[in-house]
Amino acid sequence: MEEAGELSALFDRLFPICRSICGPGIRESLQLLAKEMPLRISGILTGTRVFDWKVPPEWHIRAATLCGPDGTLYADFARSNLCVLNFSEPVDIELDREELLSHLHYIPELPGATPYVTSYYRRRWGFCLPHELVCSLPPGRYRARIDSEFRDGELNYAEAVLPGDSDREFLLTSYLCHPSLANNELSGPLVMLSLYRRLSAWKRRRFTYRFVLGPETIGSIAYLSVMGEHLRRHMVGGMVLTCLGGPASELSYKTSKRQNTLLDQVVEYMNERGEIAVRIRAFTPTTGSDERQYCSAGFNLPMGQMARTVYGEYAGYHNSLDDKEFMGIAALIQSADQIERLLAGFEEAGTFTNLCPFGEPQLGRRDLYPTLNSHANREKSCDSLADQREMLNQMLTILSYSDGEHTMLSIARRLGCSLRDLAPRIARLEQQQLLLHRPDA
Amino acid sequence: MEEAGELSALFDRLFPICRSICGPGIRESLQLLAKEMPLRISGILTGTRVFDWKVPPEWHIRAATLCGPDGTLYADFARSNLCVLNFSEPVDIELDREELLSHLHYIPELPGATPYVTSYYRRRWGFCLPHELVCSLPPGRYRARIDSEFRDGELNYAEAVLPGDSDREFLLTSYLCHPSLANNELSGPLVMLSLYRRLSAWKRRRFTYRFVLGPETIGSIAYLSVMGEHLRRHMVGGMVLTCLGGPASELSYKTSKRQNTLLDQVVEYMNERGEIAVRIRAFTPTTGSDERQYCSAGFNLPMGQMARTVYGEYAGYHNSLDDKEFMGIAALIQSADQIERLLAGFEEAGTFTNLCPFGEPQLGRRDLYPTLNSHANREKSCDSLADQREMLNQMLTILSYSDGEHTMLSIARRLGCSLRDLAPRIARLEQQQLLLHRPDA
Amino acid sequence: MEEAGELSALFDRLFPICRSICGPGIRESLQLLAKEMPLRISGILTGTRVFDWKVPPEWHIRAATLCGPDGTLYADFARSNLCVLNFSEPVDIELDREELLSHLHYIPELPGATPYVTSYYRRRWGFCLPHELVCSLPPGRYRARIDSEFRDGELNYAEAVLPGDSDREFLLTSYLCHPSLANNELSGPLVMLSLYRRLSAWKRRRFTYRFVLGPETIGSIAYLSVMGEHLRRHMVGGMVLTCLGGPASELSYKTSKRQNTLLDQVVEYMNERGEIAVRIRAFTPTTGSDERQYCSAGFNLPMGQMARTVYGEYAGYHNSLDDKEFMGIAALIQSADQIERLLAGFEEAGTFTNLCPFGEPQLGRRDLYPTLNSHANREKSCDSLADQREMLNQMLTILSYSDGEHTMLSIARRLGCSLRDLAPRIARLEQQQLLLHRPDA
Repeated sequence: MEEAGELSALFDRLFPICRSICGPGIRESLQLLAKEMPLRISGILTGTRVFDWKVPPEWHIRAATLCGPDGTLYADFARSNLCVLNFSEPVDIELDREELLSHLHYIPELPGATPYVTSYYRRRWGFCLPHELVCSLPPGRYRARIDSEFRDGELNYAEAVLPGDSDREFLLTSYLCHPSLANNELSGPLVMLSLYRRLSAWKRRRFTYRFVLGPETIGSIAYLSVMGEHLRRHMVGGMVLTCLGGPASELSYKTSKRQNTLLDQVVEYMNERGEIAVRIRAFTPTTGSDERQYCSAGFNLPMGQMARTVYGEYAGYHNSLDDKEFMGIAALIQSADQIERLLAGFEEAGTFTNLCPFGEPQLGRRDLYPTLNSHANREKSCDSLADQREMLNQMLTILSYSDGEHTMLSIARRLGCSLRDLAPRIARLEQQQLLLHRPDA
Repeated sequence: MEEAGELSALFDRLFPICRSICGPGIRESLQLLAKEMPLRISGILTGTRVFDWKVPPEWHIRAATLCGPDGTLYADFARSNLCVLNFSEPVDIELDREELLSHLHYIPELPGATPYVTSYYRRRWGFCLPHELVCSLPPGRYRARIDSEFRDGELNYAEAVLPGDSDREFLLTSYLCHPSLANNELSGPLVMLSLYRRLSAWKRRRFTYRFVLGPETIGSIAYLSVMGEHLRRHMVGGMVLTCLGGPASELSYKTSKRQNTLLDQVVEYMNERGEIAVRIRAFTPTTGSDERQYCSAGFNLPMGQMARTVYGEYAGYHNSLDDKEFMGIAALIQSADQIERLLAGFEEAGTFTNLCPFGEPQLGRRDLYPTLNSHANREKSCDSLADQREMLNQMLTILSYSDGEHTMLSIARRLGCSLRDLAPRIARLEQQQLLLHRPDA
Repeated sequence: MEEAGELSALFDRLFPICRSICGPGIRESLQLLAKEMPLRISGILTGTRVFDWKVPPEWHIRAATLCGPDGTLYADFARSNLCVLNFSEPVDIELDREELLSHLHYIPELPGATPYVTSYYRRRWGFCLPHELVCSLPPGRYRARIDSEFRDGELNYAEAVLPGDSDREFLLTSYLCHPSLANNELSGPLVMLSLYRRLSAWKRRRFTYRFVLGPETIGSIAYLSVMGEHLRRHMVGGMVLTCLGGPASELSYKTSKRQNTLLDQVVEYMNERGEIAVRIRAFTPTTGSDERQYCSAGFNLPMGQMARTVYGEYAGYHNSLDDKEFMGIAALIQSADQIERLLAGFEEAGTFTNLCPFGEPQLGRRDLYPTLNSHANREKSCDSLADQREMLNQMLTILSYSDGEHTMLSIARRLGCSLRDLAPRIARLEQQQLLLHRPDA
């Protein structure tokens, strides 16, 4: 409950900020989050080439109003930042209703909703209004004023790192460039924060965890231009966190482009066994979020996407219906619970090496094997004997298949048990220096 | 219709020639075809070792007759070149009917047909007669005269090359060593000629096309002894053209020995989608034509065989019933139509490389991506929007999977569309220098 | 019948010997067998490190008795060597029945059977008694005397080699460390002896056959410490021979850890075709015999296990019910028959290379292909023609697929025939120097 209260308060501070891909909105948002977790904020200068793209200027907006013939205020940025086309150029113009219409954006199917529309890479200006309002606009002269400015500055992104036993990394990213939207904006960073705290509290992390926030698309491309080679060499898995609220009862996982990375397999296995509840979507390069960039042909990183209620599954996508109530703070916490469980499974799922691989190790002298070869060991109860036999079978199987060709996940599958069941066996064998974690890049 | 007339006239000139594996018949036939397409004719001297074989001498035959006890002429080479055992040694002998019988070949199941029989590698003489005629032979003395001669000379083959954008080659071969037979002889060279003309007219050829004609078996072995290494390094696909006439409604494709070459896959895919109509036969080394040599263990080239009405499917195989009427000029043109369509698909089916693979390329500035992120783009009709979205999806999918690990065929399969549908997308991306054809050898 | 008599007599000499993992019992047993086949006996000194283990001392036992309060002799080593806990330390003590009970081993489910119990790696003493006898023990003072001794000496193993055409090896092992037990002790060495004699009589062996006997577990680990690298480089297949008697009607084959070695495949194929009758068990590292060591992660040798009536399938496992009658000499001979047939199949199953791979070889001049291309070859009967055609198809298929990528087993599967059917074809092609055996390591 404490976590819910904190996330809710943070949500309320972040929601009103008018974010865009470059400018003060995203910077301020990152700074707010940086008070909660040790984010290091970086900037890439306007105009910098990032692969095939160029960093756009910052968009600074102070005010925007649309006044009707009789002085009625039909749109006011001060009241809703969604009402301005994001990245609008400045304008101060009088024009007829007919001329105005080509600058208005609305959704006929959702007459009361204000759409979220952007035009980052072509200069336009415009207003976003509920369709019912557009229909009611009287004829006559309108005054459109947008007090915005494009300035050279920075594209900002932020990252935090939780070190683990190895330098092999797990990457968690989200984006922070949409203005007042909830599920498709703040759910990702808030779940990321929750996961940061949970993973910080783990007694042990086999992997290093890297958390990254920036603007969508251009932000991940810019980040890859800096860190792509590092990720290529270190990354063992990762997920874009997006749309993690909403009413869906299950998580929704989009696989990496490879479709069979260790994370893809762990999600499938834990879902099969009912340890997490996930619908699995196959990778597609045509829709989605930043995984499209991480999985692009030149990188093809082992990056999935984790969501709950996604595009196409709710009316509020990219409009004013996507608010706090729809998203739900409780849903975020449920998402974080499931993802933490998934990551705990992933920790054990990789490749281990039997350090004593020539013949079986002598488990007896390590107190892991009975020293008496008897059906009729009367020292222990039958239940305890069965437990001991199961533990022994698991250990022998782990040792046999920890040969560099099998993951622990495949060993769990062979044994028909969960990765969580194997965790204490693995730990015991590590203590005995019979097993070494050898995470694959 | 013009094509039908030309092929028919050419057929009529080629049909009566008495061909064999070496000698004036095949040479004359190649020279006739060389007037229609720029074939370069080569010769390998008698006695030359070609792998495990030796080039046999040329067989020259001038006349052959079989006279009965009462002077009846039972066989006359001047009227039918099938009546002589192909490669018969010379003979001029009188002998009893009983002795004669061991030199006669006939088909009891087809009493009216003259079989086509050869004895290239063991010296024999013989006549081929309808079984009904054999049954009617009266007892008595017969005179068998075969005026033939074995001379040192050449084994002849011919080839033509249509260059393309790359030096990766597609090989089309057929054979020309059977005397007066239609489906199992002239259909192959005539369809090859038709394909040569069609491919010459293409605006663009991604591959170089090589056309080869010679005697069956020994001819392809001899050709491989000269060109095998070149083919091994350059060949992306190929087909033996044989038995391409006859009544079968579909083509009949025998896969390469590898069974999963790009061509094997393209035939399967286009057939599945109904773009061509083909029965597919798995490779076998035990029956067939020159693909047995091209796919032999030491070469294992990506060579299939394309036919229509094949051995085992018609009574006229290797006998006088295999004539022009059975074959049908129209069937040849249908075969050429289908094969041309197949080759057009194959052109697009190979491996391409995304030249801008790190993140998505910025399609917006290339006018390939909407610059306005809006549900409610009212500038275009819904149909046009759907078309534009489909094109965009196809392009994003092509770019994502053009990573050196996926063929365009696998991308088409993923998209559920035809290679023909993708051709304009590929061309557009090539124009934008976002995509490069990287055909695999 | 002669074989049955010999094996029976040998059994009778081996059965009473009190074997253990190190000591005079196993040494004497190996020496007895060495009179029947040329076994070379080796020793590894007590205390030697063998991978993670250390060679234990020899166990010498002279006598053991358990006397009751009234002088009744409840156990006497002179009458049954099973009655002493194997590897018991010496003891001469008087103690109450209650104290005694913790040193007694018995099987409540089998009241009349004496269990076989060992404690090699922790010093204990004990007696093994029928449960009904334990229940009848009166209260009072007992005298337990075990006149045993631990001495530095050797761990012994023995091996024999039958050389073949190549130095690629097939390994047959069994163990000889259990005292008076039949199916789970003597069946393995006796079947091994039978196989040694049969394989010695073969006209030709493609492989070298290596036969190894020693104590279970520590013996194979010690053997691997000496010969593991040799086996890794030379071994093409192998089997542990164990529990090869008993009433089961079929053999029982446990696959190697790889589960798809050539031997695993041959067993499956011959079983499918009904040439041998085998139940196939998947590899497990948790139960079994020495294959656990041969297949351990660091070696992963192509080693299966062949048995008939195995652990879990008979009440007599590790107790006095496992006697000669249960085992049955006839069952051993049936096992040897089946295994010999399997090995004969394995001989032909590997990789061969077509020595004339460029195009088809000219089979005609080798009298393997008809020189007359005729439907109507009247020189032979139809049956003979069909036979000849089948032989030709088999030869062409062998030549086509003997390309280094296909085993003869896969060719047999393709042809739908047995390896035995192909053997004469292979031999013919070898005589013609068209084919070369290239066994893979």
